[in-house]
Amino acid sequence: MELRKLFLDTLVGQIRALDQFGTWSNKSNEELLNQKYVKTKEDLKNIAIISDIDEMQIQDIRLIYQAIALAFEKLTGVMCSVVMEMSHEGFGRVVVFANDIVLCEKYFKDAHRFSFRTFEKLEQEGEKYLIKAQEKYKKYKS
Amino acid sequence: MELRKLFLDTLVGQIRALDQFGTWSNKSNEELLNQKYVKTKEDLKNIAIISDIDEMQIQDIRLIYQAIALAFEKLTGVMCSVVMEMSHEGFGRVVVFANDIVLCEKYFKDAHRFSFRTFEKLEQEGEKYLIKAQEKYKKYKS
Repeated sequence: MELRKLFLDTLVGQIRALDQFGTWSNKSNEELLNQKYVKTKEDLKNIAIISDIDEMQIQDIRLIYQAIALAFEKLTGVMCSVVMEMSHEGFGRVVVFANDIVLCEKYFKDAHRFSFRTFEKLEQEGEKYLIKAQEKYKKYKS
Repeated sequence: MELRKLFLDTLVGQIRALDQFGTWSNKSNEELLNQKYVKTKEDLKNIAIISDIDEMQIQDIRLIYQAIALAFEKLTGVMCSVVMEMSHEGFGRVVVFANDIVLCEKYFKDAHRFSFRTFEKLEQEGEKYLIKAQEKYKKYKS
């Protein structure tokens, strides 16, 4: 449960840090994350399968992985980096690494449809990434 | 010496594979590499310190790291991935990794000036990257 909270808090912190114009300031954390990352099956039906991805969406995806990196830093004190590439058609890849170890890595297609079915799924995913990242780092670095 | 040849051959192979219109077909390998990657101090004086980078140059930089990845694959049989991000101002980062291990990683600024002073420096750099990559992989994976 602690990891979920750490992940969500870090993610929200990143989003709000980028909110220069206060667009999100009246929204609760949960509303904000729901709006950005949660799409139900019904929502997805209304998004074209093939479509371009805009800069905002690319940024939102990136923030997930930056939150993983930052949360890992908070947990371990080890600095992480995120490198992400994304074509405007929504194909891309992201990698989070610390020293020589890849902590988390994902390939995207149809990234314009990137989302989680429920808020819980988002939490779970963050938790899973953080557990895996710590395991990997420990495996190679100890 | 073998690693240098492997690196250069792989790099040239990648460049020629992308040469759809035969623009480079009359050039020797050495001419081609010189034209793309070698800039003397004198040449650099004529390139602005702050300037945008074009898609072609980003691609050329990427090819270096793809060549490292592909050459590593030829040497070890282990599949590699390259992820690179680059802003149009020439700030960016590239990472080459295999399984969970980061083989090579570089941060760019002024990437529009990215180049080697001599042809030998280019060869040496490729060799150095490949030696380092093999060492790292061995360190963690054995």
